[in-house]
Amino acid sequence: MNSRRDFLQKLTASLIILNLPGQVSAYAATSGLNTQTYDGPPLRVAIMGLGSYGSRVAEAMQACKKAKIVGVISGTPSKISTWQSKYNIPAKNCYNYENFDDIKNNPDIDAVYVITPNALHRDQVIRVAKAGKHVICEKPMGLNAKECEEMIDACKKANVKLLVGYRMHFEPNTVEIINQRSRGEFGRILSFEGGTGFPIGDPTQWRLNKALAGGGSLMDVGIYAVNGARYMVGQEPVWVTAQETKTNPAKFKEGVDETIQFQLGFPNGAIASCVTSYNISLDRFVLNGDKGFAELRPAFGYGPIKARTNKGELSFPHVMHQTTQMDEMAGIILGNNKPVFPVDGEEGLKDLKVIDAIYLAVKTGKKVPLSL
Amino acid sequence: MNSRRDFLQKLTASLIILNLPGQVSAYAATSGLNTQTYDGPPLRVAIMGLGSYGSRVAEAMQACKKAKIVGVISGTPSKISTWQSKYNIPAKNCYNYENFDDIKNNPDIDAVYVITPNALHRDQVIRVAKAGKHVICEKPMGLNAKECEEMIDACKKANVKLLVGYRMHFEPNTVEIINQRSRGEFGRILSFEGGTGFPIGDPTQWRLNKALAGGGSLMDVGIYAVNGARYMVGQEPVWVTAQETKTNPAKFKEGVDETIQFQLGFPNGAIASCVTSYNISLDRFVLNGDKGFAELRPAFGYGPIKARTNKGELSFPHVMHQTTQMDEMAGIILGNNKPVFPVDGEEGLKDLKVIDAIYLAVKTGKKVPLSL
Repeated sequence: MNSRRDFLQKLTASLIILNLPGQVSAYAATSGLNTQTYDGPPLRVAIMGLGSYGSRVAEAMQACKKAKIVGVISGTPSKISTWQSKYNIPAKNCYNYENFDDIKNNPDIDAVYVITPNALHRDQVIRVAKAGKHVICEKPMGLNAKECEEMIDACKKANVKLLVGYRMHFEPNTVEIINQRSRGEFGRILSFEGGTGFPIGDPTQWRLNKALAGGGSLMDVGIYAVNGARYMVGQEPVWVTAQETKTNPAKFKEGVDETIQFQLGFPNGAIASCVTSYNISLDRFVLNGDKGFAELRPAFGYGPIKARTNKGELSFPHVMHQTTQMDEMAGIILGNNKPVFPVDGEEGLKDLKVIDAIYLAVKTGKKVPLSL
Repeated sequence: MNSRRDFLQKLTASLIILNLPGQVSAYAATSGLNTQTYDGPPLRVAIMGLGSYGSRVAEAMQACKKAKIVGVISGTPSKISTWQSKYNIPAKNCYNYENFDDIKNNPDIDAVYVITPNALHRDQVIRVAKAGKHVICEKPMGLNAKECEEMIDACKKANVKLLVGYRMHFEPNTVEIINQRSRGEFGRILSFEGGTGFPIGDPTQWRLNKALAGGGSLMDVGIYAVNGARYMVGQEPVWVTAQETKTNPAKFKEGVDETIQFQLGFPNGAIASCVTSYNISLDRFVLNGDKGFAELRPAFGYGPIKARTNKGELSFPHVMHQTTQMDEMAGIILGNNKPVFPVDGEEGLKDLKVIDAIYLAVKTGKKVPLSL
């Protein structure tokens, strides 16, 4: 029983009907966020890792106008054949983890979306880059900042683009709040509160395996609060403190965090108070300025994000996040578009620098200075 | 310009009309919280300290059925005469700070409500106790745990009751949430979030004077989050961490905290994440259990407290908190009633033990163990 999947499905069950091509243009028409259009050919994507999130991305991509699944990379032949028939993928675009370097000889694939366990990202992204393909890497980009730097270097060297799967950066309510904050509508930013958590199920899943996940809830969902603090406040944190609490050490073994509270300080004195947990249901961001506030609640689930400010509720229609993300990423990769908040490797690196500092603060019990 | 008063008045301006005797019984009838009735004579109260909060208490007491203002203690003769005519107080029940020990010879006063700057509480409460009168002391009970212990000892010795002005302990939404949590309706308690803050005005007020206030926002409003964490979670914290942020050291001088984030850990592994501030508008408590949640928002302002749980919104009619508080305290003092959550000196002491630990954690940067 995978309660993570249950959690995600509960959030989206009633929304799949909205995941139609027509809704994408509705989003573009009503949000006013997409001032950049991309009119070139679609981004031809191979998905690496055909697990539950890879499947979600693939389903959402059926509604994309500018991105298309054309290939797969998997270690499981039966999954490959299922995907081949489901998404009409030719055999020549199917790879396994041994031979995917050959993708360099495949002119029909533009980019690879790496959706594998965290610990595999670094090597796989570097191999994709060496194969000359653009890379989208699911978050967290790597296990730590050092890995991210190596990935960035490899992609620069190979002259390919590297994006991180930050779907919230394309979610219209979120983007609208970022824009309002940028325009100063909340005044001077004073504080952020972020809660990200859910009671995780199956104790045997890779997310609870330190060797594959590199950590626990912080790596999986806490990163949304780290990232959210940065895009909501609009500054980079300069210090971190953090406290870990573990109530079930049998399930959450050494190195796999169950619950972490962390606090960030920003250059103007703004503060962030965050909780991430594999035990507590939490899904809320709040931004407080001296002239107003914004609340996203839910803030990071797959279902409709709900936003309100001191002026009232926002009402953007829900679109599957991954649909918008992949259409927008096509424009970024092939059209050189710029998102409202970056989604590149440098962005992934910054989050991992904060995460490194959070784990260090937990370990030492001390305030850790940061310089992003 | 006192923006604290503005803040409080904004919260209550439209509600004073509700502050009628009839509403008190409406509260009792609909809340189902007051199973204990008190039918004896009213509690005859002298108010010590005729500042803005003393005035608020006095106005609210006009709607009390079981408590009555009969006396005043003040250092300002003009205030005394105003109160005398407003509340029909005889000259023989008026005292100043030099002669109020004589209250021991006044059979027409049962109790003194001490509503003076924090630093004066200890000596004034001890003097009232020595005069043989029951004492209600406004929060924070003292400047630190040591003072509270001395006050408790003095009241025990004098055989008088000592209560602390915890108005939220009688607020029907709050009490209903406490009762629901006690009945296990939220399951195992996992976390609490508490935000208490407002942008404070006049920099010359006593609340921003270390010698009179003993601190800053933590002493004034952070105590609501400390207290709230304890009554919402229903356990006593076993550790504290805390971080202070100061953006305006000219206004918030040495020893006067502007903003403090603090975290508490509880015996069952539940955690609290709190922010208190004299700079940020914050007024919200959230309790998360493994079977449900409760939210109070606003949670501590004078205006109507709004509560909702996973089952929906609560709808108790608003009654001025101080009206209910004083009627209930009459029953506690004269009728030996027990409130749902204690309001005695031991209760005040526990909050100051947590506050002492928060200030120590700020100073040392370390996790401070607690044993209440």
